[in-house]
Amino acid sequence: MPYYIGDVIKDSRKLVARTPEKFRETGIEVFTETRVGTVDIKEQAVLTEDGKKLPFDFLVFGTGTRAFTPGMPGEDREGVFVLKGLSDAIRIKQLLQDTPCRRAVIIGAGFIGLEMSEAFREAGIETTMVHRGTLPAARWDPELSRPILEEMERHGVAFLPNTRVTSIEPGSDCRNRLNTSAGPLEADIILLALGVRPDVDLARESGITLGPSGAIAVNFAQRTCAENVYAAGDCCESYHRVSGRWVNIPLGDIANKQGRVAGSNIGGDPMTFPGIVGAQSFKIFGLEAAAAGLSEREATAAGFHPVSTILWGNSAARSMPTAKRVGLKLTADRGTGKLLGVQAVGEAGAVSRVNTLSAALWAGMSLEDVAYLDLAYSPPFGGAWDPIHIAAQGLLRKL
Amino acid sequence: MPYYIGDVIKDSRKLVARTPEKFRETGIEVFTETRVGTVDIKEQAVLTEDGKKLPFDFLVFGTGTRAFTPGMPGEDREGVFVLKGLSDAIRIKQLLQDTPCRRAVIIGAGFIGLEMSEAFREAGIETTMVHRGTLPAARWDPELSRPILEEMERHGVAFLPNTRVTSIEPGSDCRNRLNTSAGPLEADIILLALGVRPDVDLARESGITLGPSGAIAVNFAQRTCAENVYAAGDCCESYHRVSGRWVNIPLGDIANKQGRVAGSNIGGDPMTFPGIVGAQSFKIFGLEAAAAGLSEREATAAGFHPVSTILWGNSAARSMPTAKRVGLKLTADRGTGKLLGVQAVGEAGAVSRVNTLSAALWAGMSLEDVAYLDLAYSPPFGGAWDPIHIAAQGLLRKL
Repeated sequence: MPYYIGDVIKDSRKLVARTPEKFRETGIEVFTETRVGTVDIKEQAVLTEDGKKLPFDFLVFGTGTRAFTPGMPGEDREGVFVLKGLSDAIRIKQLLQDTPCRRAVIIGAGFIGLEMSEAFREAGIETTMVHRGTLPAARWDPELSRPILEEMERHGVAFLPNTRVTSIEPGSDCRNRLNTSAGPLEADIILLALGVRPDVDLARESGITLGPSGAIAVNFAQRTCAENVYAAGDCCESYHRVSGRWVNIPLGDIANKQGRVAGSNIGGDPMTFPGIVGAQSFKIFGLEAAAAGLSEREATAAGFHPVSTILWGNSAARSMPTAKRVGLKLTADRGTGKLLGVQAVGEAGAVSRVNTLSAALWAGMSLEDVAYLDLAYSPPFGGAWDPIHIAAQGLLRKL
Repeated sequence: MPYYIGDVIKDSRKLVARTPEKFRETGIEVFTETRVGTVDIKEQAVLTEDGKKLPFDFLVFGTGTRAFTPGMPGEDREGVFVLKGLSDAIRIKQLLQDTPCRRAVIIGAGFIGLEMSEAFREAGIETTMVHRGTLPAARWDPELSRPILEEMERHGVAFLPNTRVTSIEPGSDCRNRLNTSAGPLEADIILLALGVRPDVDLARESGITLGPSGAIAVNFAQRTCAENVYAAGDCCESYHRVSGRWVNIPLGDIANKQGRVAGSNIGGDPMTFPGIVGAQSFKIFGLEAAAAGLSEREATAAGFHPVSTILWGNSAARSMPTAKRVGLKLTADRGTGKLLGVQAVGEAGAVSRVNTLSAALWAGMSLEDVAYLDLAYSPPFGGAWDPIHIAAQGLLRKL
């Protein structure tokens, strides 16, 4: 009989299923509120902390990530949150409902911090983002993260760059006071949005090999170093088709795919996960931001000789009233002429162009192919020369 | 000294440049209002009807297309138009300004007819579309052209399917009366939107070889059968990367690319046009329609064994208020599992998905690749499983 070991909230040792009854109906035994003590790979059994021994033929680690917290004094105060799981979201909503919240401080400028800045502003809360770097959205280069910052500021998000946080203590004006290298900030709600780390404690203690990224090492079948043990999702690595490296990019779509591949292999239907190209996107107020492939820094680290171009073009033909500016950065390898990466930001058309180029990256296309790619042209959706073509042709001249 | 032979309005024998002065400034001699009588390929000279002899080292045919007209009585009446060139558009606009137009009839249900039905409706004109087929937009299969028809009807366009036109005569209630197999239709303006044919008379008379499509045969360098004679744009063929056939698909983006390739080769910088995948799109009221690759019929004709699936999914994650329904039809080859074609229709997200799959078609991807393609997932722009993935996985099960 299969056990459900999957939807883990906050702590990988606590097995929680959202609807245990639904699983039981399909013949899957579910243990909620149950912490795993040890996994005995040789004996093929999971030992729970409350003394149950669950033998297995196959085991899947789907332990996900933990939100990173800096470990500063006052992190555990009321009104201080991470946003990792559903329960965090519920607790944040509850606080906003139960108590008056005038000011929020977000520490960190990644996906979660950015998306939450919009959510806070829409709830009418004064919002400040504190970031140790210069610009938000580190995955995007300055030419494109600057417009992201401008969009945030246009919508009333204050941004404190190059700022370190040191401690949280009781506030005078608001519930909490965050002490930073730029002085104290009062806030009713403080969100620690400093990224996540793969939750691999249990796997490591079980003797499962981790990869260089710190996540669980798997092969193309999602199998770990142990014969009958698989891993899928944010806790494990993925093969990056552009860099040829195994990386940890915790995203929901990758997790979904890997889970399916692991399940198929366990069920006896051999299947491989063909890897990723690092495609990702987010929305911030009226702006789309998307990226795929490698940044210049990543490209250099992978041994390529990157050369890039930035183009500001139109999402539709210039003659169309619906046309919006879209910024497109392409990176290619000087040696081979291969496309290595793309970043895009704009009010419209950024995600769609990155998706098109994700397919190009997946296929290992050269810049010459990209420069003459056949796209579904009509004026409401692009120019006869799309920004993709113009950027690729511009970059070809630099090779 | 180069002569400008290019922007031809209505008749390929009339050389018209929009801004002859601009061309002359760059050292290009322009002959407007000048008809070419013959081209002597051996002598390397163009002879104009008014007696000029223009010798050339290189010649480019950029003669485009002519609008097809059925040749029925009354076609030349006032208020009867084709829409091929800028001058046609100006004359139609002029008529709408100068005389009251209450009713329009459009004959034909392709791109031009569809787009003009929206333009007429927006000008407040009662609009009827007469079509010899059952559904509009023949490039799209019935599952997707039916929603296109519904969108038109929702916006007040009357559609007469399976109807043949026979003649145009003076109307009683309106300027003209169109006689059809479904009875007479009164209209102030009648648009013949029955498609275009490559304008190849001059090329054929010069001894230039035409391809099986009836358009000028060219090689990958855009060269015709004659050493120094090139052709680019709607008047010539393109290599279709999916069917492996040379086809004539008159679209502005293809013409732009081919013109650049021809020019580069003539200028001494060797270049090839890598071909097309038949990507195309149009907007009709609130609907996007796009397609790429081969339809089932085209796939069968090319020797494939097509199998298709239709999926109605969401343009964004289902939880997002911005999510719209998008219909996606994928066609693959039963023998090789290769993706052969895609069609999409929806209020949002149809063109972007076709563009992503255009890149996949360009690269010759298999359905297995498409089913696990890495796309820039976030809820405002798609589900963790995009309609692309779901459709491809569904189709994989049918192979």
